[in-house]
Amino acid sequence: MAPSLDEYTGFKHFLISSPAEYVAHVETNRPEKLNAFFEAMWLELGEIFRKLSHDPNVRAVIFSAAGERAFTAGLDVQATNQGGMLSPDGTIDGSRFATRVRRYIHEFQDSISAIEKCEKPVIVVMHGISIGLAIDMSCCADIRICSKDTKFSVKEVDIGLAADIGTLSRLPKIVGNHGWVKDVCLSARFFDANEALAVGYVSRVTEDKAGAIDAATKLATLIASKSPVAVQGTKEILNYSRDHSVADGLHYTAVWNSAMLHSTDVASAMLSGIKKTKPRFEKL
Amino acid sequence: MAPSLDEYTGFKHFLISSPAEYVAHVETNRPEKLNAFFEAMWLELGEIFRKLSHDPNVRAVIFSAAGERAFTAGLDVQATNQGGMLSPDGTIDGSRFATRVRRYIHEFQDSISAIEKCEKPVIVVMHGISIGLAIDMSCCADIRICSKDTKFSVKEVDIGLAADIGTLSRLPKIVGNHGWVKDVCLSARFFDANEALAVGYVSRVTEDKAGAIDAATKLATLIASKSPVAVQGTKEILNYSRDHSVADGLHYTAVWNSAMLHSTDVASAMLSGIKKTKPRFEKL
Amino acid sequence: MAPSLDEYTGFKHFLISSPAEYVAHVETNRPEKLNAFFEAMWLELGEIFRKLSHDPNVRAVIFSAAGERAFTAGLDVQATNQGGMLSPDGTIDGSRFATRVRRYIHEFQDSISAIEKCEKPVIVVMHGISIGLAIDMSCCADIRICSKDTKFSVKEVDIGLAADIGTLSRLPKIVGNHGWVKDVCLSARFFDANEALAVGYVSRVTEDKAGAIDAATKLATLIASKSPVAVQGTKEILNYSRDHSVADGLHYTAVWNSAMLHSTDVASAMLSGIKKTKPRFEKL
Amino acid sequence: MAPSLDEYTGFKHFLISSPAEYVAHVETNRPEKLNAFFEAMWLELGEIFRKLSHDPNVRAVIFSAAGERAFTAGLDVQATNQGGMLSPDGTIDGSRFATRVRRYIHEFQDSISAIEKCEKPVIVVMHGISIGLAIDMSCCADIRICSKDTKFSVKEVDIGLAADIGTLSRLPKIVGNHGWVKDVCLSARFFDANEALAVGYVSRVTEDKAGAIDAATKLATLIASKSPVAVQGTKEILNYSRDHSVADGLHYTAVWNSAMLHSTDVASAMLSGIKKTKPRFEKL
Amino acid sequence: MAPSLDEYTGFKHFLISSPAEYVAHVETNRPEKLNAFFEAMWLELGEIFRKLSHDPNVRAVIFSAAGERAFTAGLDVQATNQGGMLSPDGTIDGSRFATRVRRYIHEFQDSISAIEKCEKPVIVVMHGISIGLAIDMSCCADIRICSKDTKFSVKEVDIGLAADIGTLSRLPKIVGNHGWVKDVCLSARFFDANEALAVGYVSRVTEDKAGAIDAATKLATLIASKSPVAVQGTKEILNYSRDHSVADGLHYTAVWNSAMLHSTDVASAMLSGIKKTKPRFEKL
Amino acid sequence: MAPSLDEYTGFKHFLISSPAEYVAHVETNRPEKLNAFFEAMWLELGEIFRKLSHDPNVRAVIFSAAGERAFTAGLDVQATNQGGMLSPDGTIDGSRFATRVRRYIHEFQDSISAIEKCEKPVIVVMHGISIGLAIDMSCCADIRICSKDTKFSVKEVDIGLAADIGTLSRLPKIVGNHGWVKDVCLSARFFDANEALAVGYVSRVTEDKAGAIDAATKLATLIASKSPVAVQGTKEILNYSRDHSVADGLHYTAVWNSAMLHSTDVASAMLSGIKKTKPRFEKL
Repeated sequence: MAPSLDEYTGFKHFLISSPAEYVAHVETNRPEKLNAFFEAMWLELGEIFRKLSHDPNVRAVIFSAAGERAFTAGLDVQATNQGGMLSPDGTIDGSRFATRVRRYIHEFQDSISAIEKCEKPVIVVMHGISIGLAIDMSCCADIRICSKDTKFSVKEVDIGLAADIGTLSRLPKIVGNHGWVKDVCLSARFFDANEALAVGYVSRVTEDKAGAIDAATKLATLIASKSPVAVQGTKEILNYSRDHSVADGLHYTAVWNSAMLHSTDVASAMLSGIKKTKPRFEKL
Repeated sequence: MAPSLDEYTGFKHFLISSPAEYVAHVETNRPEKLNAFFEAMWLELGEIFRKLSHDPNVRAVIFSAAGERAFTAGLDVQATNQGGMLSPDGTIDGSRFATRVRRYIHEFQDSISAIEKCEKPVIVVMHGISIGLAIDMSCCADIRICSKDTKFSVKEVDIGLAADIGTLSRLPKIVGNHGWVKDVCLSARFFDANEALAVGYVSRVTEDKAGAIDAATKLATLIASKSPVAVQGTKEILNYSRDHSVADGLHYTAVWNSAMLHSTDVASAMLSGIKKTKPRFEKL
Repeated sequence: MAPSLDEYTGFKHFLISSPAEYVAHVETNRPEKLNAFFEAMWLELGEIFRKLSHDPNVRAVIFSAAGERAFTAGLDVQATNQGGMLSPDGTIDGSRFATRVRRYIHEFQDSISAIEKCEKPVIVVMHGISIGLAIDMSCCADIRICSKDTKFSVKEVDIGLAADIGTLSRLPKIVGNHGWVKDVCLSARFFDANEALAVGYVSRVTEDKAGAIDAATKLATLIASKSPVAVQGTKEILNYSRDHSVADGLHYTAVWNSAMLHSTDVASAMLSGIKKTKPRFEKL
Repeated sequence: MAPSLDEYTGFKHFLISSPAEYVAHVETNRPEKLNAFFEAMWLELGEIFRKLSHDPNVRAVIFSAAGERAFTAGLDVQATNQGGMLSPDGTIDGSRFATRVRRYIHEFQDSISAIEKCEKPVIVVMHGISIGLAIDMSCCADIRICSKDTKFSVKEVDIGLAADIGTLSRLPKIVGNHGWVKDVCLSARFFDANEALAVGYVSRVTEDKAGAIDAATKLATLIASKSPVAVQGTKEILNYSRDHSVADGLHYTAVWNSAMLHSTDVASAMLSGIKKTKPRFEKL
Repeated sequence: MAPSLDEYTGFKHFLISSPAEYVAHVETNRPEKLNAFFEAMWLELGEIFRKLSHDPNVRAVIFSAAGERAFTAGLDVQATNQGGMLSPDGTIDGSRFATRVRRYIHEFQDSISAIEKCEKPVIVVMHGISIGLAIDMSCCADIRICSKDTKFSVKEVDIGLAADIGTLSRLPKIVGNHGWVKDVCLSARFFDANEALAVGYVSRVTEDKAGAIDAATKLATLIASKSPVAVQGTKEILNYSRDHSVADGLHYTAVWNSAMLHSTDVASAMLSGIKKTKPRFEKL
Repeated sequence: MAPSLDEYTGFKHFLISSPAEYVAHVETNRPEKLNAFFEAMWLELGEIFRKLSHDPNVRAVIFSAAGERAFTAGLDVQATNQGGMLSPDGTIDGSRFATRVRRYIHEFQDSISAIEKCEKPVIVVMHGISIGLAIDMSCCADIRICSKDTKFSVKEVDIGLAADIGTLSRLPKIVGNHGWVKDVCLSARFFDANEALAVGYVSRVTEDKAGAIDAATKLATLIASKSPVAVQGTKEILNYSRDHSVADGLHYTAVWNSAMLHSTDVASAMLSGIKKTKPRFEKL
């Protein structure tokens, strides 16, 4: 990805690198504040993922955070409350405050949803403190990996609100144990990496953060070696199917594939299969 | 909840108490008949949960059954069949019988659904025989806990009918193992507490019923200590999201929170967080 | 099922037998080619399952494949590509090629969906190589059993396309671990029987294929001993509920049962329960 | 309906009579206040329609209002605001006020929706002032008839709120002119009987209220002469189809009719058709 | 269509001709019985429309009926009832009868839905008696034209059942006047061509049947002169959008067009536009 | 709106003015090219409507086009095709071309959908040539007004493609005459102002463009005089209800209004009603 890295240098709050061909690595870079997020950060994050989504030099993305202590401690509540978003300040009536809040949440959701809408698979690596917004963001990724020291919490009820950036909409569709989802969302209790693995919220637990990054890089590299037409179609159809009936999913799949079977990828893949060589696919 | 207990004394088939502040405990009280249900019971149960739903003195509910032998043996088939609901008696034609059955099922479903519609989280505690209606009712609860002696069965096919009070609609959305759901629903076989835990149908298995009640009480007390605005919003949005797309869920969340961020709970919660004190929240 | 077996003798690619009363066993019979599928095979398969669906002598179906090496190696890519379905041959423009592909996929999907639409429960037994179409087909079954030597792969990305016969629409609704689904679908990596069991994709793993057939036969026989009215209603409502909201599911259940409680099965079942005899149910 | 009229004598705000066999007529009876509604009234209205829904002596319902001046001037705003439902009174915080309002609206909606959920067709007759709640209620009816003096308005924006008892959810599904719906809902302007007829909101305009009642009675009598199995099934399936896809509607129709073709009504109807006599149908 | 006509000669109950290039005309041919339908007829009709759907020589279809008296008098009730489909005959219990009915309705619906699923636009021409099944079938067509003598009725309630072959699911989505739909479906009253035109059920009324056929032929010829890629995509997306949200519709449109913009049709169409010549499009 | 006009001066392709208090007027300004659109234009249009959506000085928007000849002649096909979006240029394979097209359509749709997503009501004024994109854009507006010289056409099939910027998804939900929608979309024929009025596509036809602007201004001014809380809630709920069931719509309405009844608007509106004065509402 060396040729494209230059395009990602203007960002303030995130580091972007390319650990392997066609693999991008986005790193939240505010370790001194436990990678807590404020508005400018999530707007930038949305911008980055929208760019990666269409970048032909990228076929898989790793998302992690700098430092040893936290993937993210979530929302920087102090900064957010100064913006008057968490409680009314009396200068406007209740309906107008509600409107301000609603618009604000929509904008916030849109930024975070860019991770899910990124056409390329996203693997999130979590470590240390991973609470509140950490869960919202990780639910937008396709695959979750963490180190064994990770401490998770759907923390929002502890600050008096229902999680609003996506955890409550996405977590029940990621983890097939609705009782567990209710438990952790209603109690805001911490759960550790093993529990996360047992219920299927993460796919893998490693000894430490470095190991998790390494595992994610290997998986991203593997995915990036496949036909991008096949990989991106697979992600799209899986996300479509999550929100539709099986009949709708089948119908959509047929139309999608009718558009996407025009490539040279099938021929390349089959030839490589026979010759036992590594196929090369055109950019997408 | 002492001040409100008086309001719950007129019920015949259920005992209602308050084991902790803001926690209500509803107990089916027909142990001599293995807590089998007949029509008057489920109508009363619906009434109780509708009342708890809006009772400002209640923030979490435990639902269990009296006696050592059974959470419930399900429908009291004999009583129900006398009402002519399970097979036609020849006095009316097939369509009219079908209409009678349909209305009856709707009324029955509405009573049981009141557990799910209760705005406050409901933790169900199961023990001993827990078959048929036991599964329907438990699927309406948010969290399921049981003692290790519990014997479960989706028993309906054994009496010649498809489960109609909600198991078939809700169980597949609670447990993310569709093959297992098909297996137990089609075979009517018994499964035990460990299997229930392994597939995620229950969240916890205890040594005995007393232990399960104790665990439920602790969890209910924890939940009841949180902001009721946050807790009830979390339950509502999770249930909404189960039945809608992620996009719909996000949109609904934004509107819901725009209404529910007007409270003093956020300020109370954050202040308590800083001061390390226990927050107090207004009734809801 | 002896009286009906004669009706199933005209099929070329599948063996059909009746290992127990009311149980049919469909076996793919192309072991010399690892049971790979070509068009005539899936058309025949669809025909068989449509016939079984309404056959009153059948109450449960087992689906497996002949030989020791493979349940199926999936699509016979060579045969399919000769039909010009996997890449354009330049004789028609892109839109016309897309139309040909779309119609072809729909027809293919319809054949495989006949397994799911079969009104009687279907238990699939997998062994050995089980890749590509193997996963699509198994996701249409109600219950999946495999021997411990089974090697699974959602193989499609390796040949440059997104799985289009149903895996991507159905697998996420069968297995409640969306991260795992993404992982295996995006990487096309192999997974073994134990992993399949751990995530809930299969319900049981046996020592060998014979053991899996045996387990499936026992389960099918058990299901076939139940009221067919109850069993078929249970399958139908579970599949309906998967694709609808809980409210819709409850409503549908009430209407379905209003039609299906007119049988003598309830009386037979209850009487047998009292007398401890095995009930006999009329054909359906 | 003479035998059943006694059962409807205990209501305070509505007159109930039977102008023809199997036809019930419900009349709002607060003409001195332009039939404006307060809470006790809509609760009673809901109760009446729930009773009519299952009353075997009723096959069609007419809903109108007493007096010459108004079908209804809508919500009795003064009475409602005293209940503190339209603006916060400062005794509770914004979230708690929001909760109170939400529960109140749900209860109000449930009462009015009872008109739509009534299993028997409902014909509403409007005259004079018909604003606000008049539109909400009329949208729950199956057929709308009015006299030419009727003055309609979706009045809510004029009192500072969005119509919340159903107009905004139902009107666009009744009238196939979304621009007109937006126009009258956003501007709160009055429209007359001719405009209502032209856009299809009402089916018929008569010279005066008496004529409208007469037309409704004739239509109700005609509908009441048909097979109640057929009529009630038709209403149910039309309402189901409004909210579902065509594929879902067809599927539901097949299941519904499989339950409802067990009657003697088909034979009676066909025999009468041949003999040119009026068929008699059993009660439902 | 001359080259393909030979393929349509084997049908018994329908005449098939080609009045213009790329236009097929299907005519029900049982005028001596008012074109009433029995089972073999609708099975054949389904077969014909499935064939037309993929026939590259067909770009638009006209559907009408032979003789001067009737488009169709609907179901041949006598023939159908002999099959035991309209009322139980006592040889099987209620649930088994319900199952037989349900399967039968599904098969019937599938045949008629083939008109809607036909990828090419279908224009139906109605005349004379057009009741019951006439409405079901016409609702599957894209455009409805009739002569002024046509007498319509949603006749089913008059024979004691709810219309089950699609009228109740499709008519409310064709005609934006829900009150009118309820009126004609609940009363089974006749309505004439002018009323049909006024509510938008038919698009055009002609003096006589010949005029209607002529108008349909002109419109079909016009449509057949357009790019088949554009026409068939338009039909597909309109039908998809009817059953989905606007957001879903937009998403589907983007994917569909990404597959279907690979044609030479755009270039041909634009060139013809400039040169004022008639474009020629490849077959589809 | 004088104070805010300055903020809208940087736009190149649109004129923005304020004809009345709280009313904005957006005018497409490329009359010399019949207001045909190219990419930079629709991107700018999206930006403008996103800005208006949250501008507290705007409560209603008029959208029209400069010059006497055309609202818009649609897409500037020449410019678009140079971008290689309408047919493949052979430099990339079919799948990659499909991906480029899909992304392009999504971006285009997003810009146009900003008209619909604008929280304030939008009235579109059409005149002269109004084809292709004209229909897509007008379907995003809440209310459509035109002068009698307007010539409409859903023109896309004439250039070989299915309309992809929203007409096919939105028009059937605006106009309750599905046959007419199919007719004009499949034939690409022109229709005039009277036909547009008759089917309900436009709400009003005026003598000339000036009259249409005048009518729109009066209506916008009326709407802008109402409580913005009420008006914007009404628009939002109507659009939500279009895409959801009635049950979902009612539920959403209750939550929305629980957030939006905290305003001083109800009190202001009621007081003004009593005092016969014009109410003043706070900005939103």
